[in-house]
Amino acid sequence: MPRYKLVVEYDGTPFTGWQHQTNGLSVQQAVEEAIERFAGEKVRIHCAGRTDSGVHATGQVVHVDLAKEWRPDTVRDATNAHLRPAPVAILSAEPVPETFNARLSAVKRHYLYRILNRRAPAALDLNRVWHVAWKLDAEAMHEAAQSLTGRHDFTTFRAAECQANSPIRTLDRLDVERIGDEIRVHASARSFLHHQVRSIVGTLERVGAGRWPVGEVKAALEARDRKRCGPMAPSTGLYLIGVDYPD
Amino acid sequence: MPRYKLVVEYDGTPFTGWQHQTNGLSVQQAVEEAIERFAGEKVRIHCAGRTDSGVHATGQVVHVDLAKEWRPDTVRDATNAHLRPAPVAILSAEPVPETFNARLSAVKRHYLYRILNRRAPAALDLNRVWHVAWKLDAEAMHEAAQSLTGRHDFTTFRAAECQANSPIRTLDRLDVERIGDEIRVHASARSFLHHQVRSIVGTLERVGAGRWPVGEVKAALEARDRKRCGPMAPSTGLYLIGVDYPD
Repeated sequence: MPRYKLVVEYDGTPFTGWQHQTNGLSVQQAVEEAIERFAGEKVRIHCAGRTDSGVHATGQVVHVDLAKEWRPDTVRDATNAHLRPAPVAILSAEPVPETFNARLSAVKRHYLYRILNRRAPAALDLNRVWHVAWKLDAEAMHEAAQSLTGRHDFTTFRAAECQANSPIRTLDRLDVERIGDEIRVHASARSFLHHQVRSIVGTLERVGAGRWPVGEVKAALEARDRKRCGPMAPSTGLYLIGVDYPD
Repeated sequence: MPRYKLVVEYDGTPFTGWQHQTNGLSVQQAVEEAIERFAGEKVRIHCAGRTDSGVHATGQVVHVDLAKEWRPDTVRDATNAHLRPAPVAILSAEPVPETFNARLSAVKRHYLYRILNRRAPAALDLNRVWHVAWKLDAEAMHEAAQSLTGRHDFTTFRAAECQANSPIRTLDRLDVERIGDEIRVHASARSFLHHQVRSIVGTLERVGAGRWPVGEVKAALEARDRKRCGPMAPSTGLYLIGVDYPD
């Protein structure tokens, strides 16, 4: 069966998350049903990174097997036509060998976390940022973030329900920058633990607010204790922005 | 009575436009009711530029008179608290002399128009851009735009229902630039005619699509004939981003 790689953008707000749930519409279901309506067959899609309810994507990657060979542009355009009016769009579709697996072949995942840091709440970016009304020191956040890059046991920054076999991950990038009223956290790694980015951002916020000294983040990491994590940042500010594969 | 100048951000999508309407909630009504709930008095606000249904603002300016003198930060924060969950936010509030009038004192208005120019429809920016699926030549659009700057009779680019006394306006800036998949049109003038920016953007799109030669825009302007205008661009891509006042 011909296999296709799709790059997907979505606003996570109205969805229960990526994965099928019984309590509402998932992004996975929206995309599968759109493909099924144009291709006339039952399909199952597989993604690179399952996102929680409210989390967005500008570069989620999935693979899907179709019974018939379609022009890639037709897969993209016909799926988009059937997705309307859901806030999900297929940015590209391309044929890939059967050895390609969106999850298993991925060598790096890139996330962006957006904090709106001003007194006034978000209007245009409602549900697209985390609104923090008190002034944050982005430089202190960046400095603390550097103690988390590299290979570590991330037990402190891992959800209780995380199903990964090991809490050890290698964080390749964790940069914090201020752009006007917005603070952006860039995180890249081969793979992440469940809630790892939101746990880290919530902890860095405590540093930015001046409530934690910079060195406290390293101490929390080394404690390997979930109770030492800061309050988890909300899903609204998180974006899966890209997934890398070997050439 | 103490007068306050407020800077307002809003997502125009759920509103009937700035001004009171009988067919739904206007931005004006949302802000007035929020102020009334905290101040305990009936108020009327006056804006710098009335926006149509679906048009957004990151820098709308209004003035309002209140019976009592409040701390400016209280006006901002208390209004925001009562605006929730509407996608409207007061970015700042400051006391101004009674001679200040948001509309009449304004010396320049700045608009941004966003076109998402890619095959896939907007997902995260649904209702926040105009989606144009065919490739646009932003350089040709910019070149054509330059024939519209300066002082002209803009009858061609004016809504039939425009109530301004004169069709003559001075366009100080009309720049078109491409940033990745997005084309941005920046327009600045002391004042604009009704639907002027959307009429101009819709016309420039025809040039970008290669359907109109660059010189056709100047000819359309000089014809002073509404029938020579291109199809009007939708409200979803338009943002009132700022209003200038004398020091």
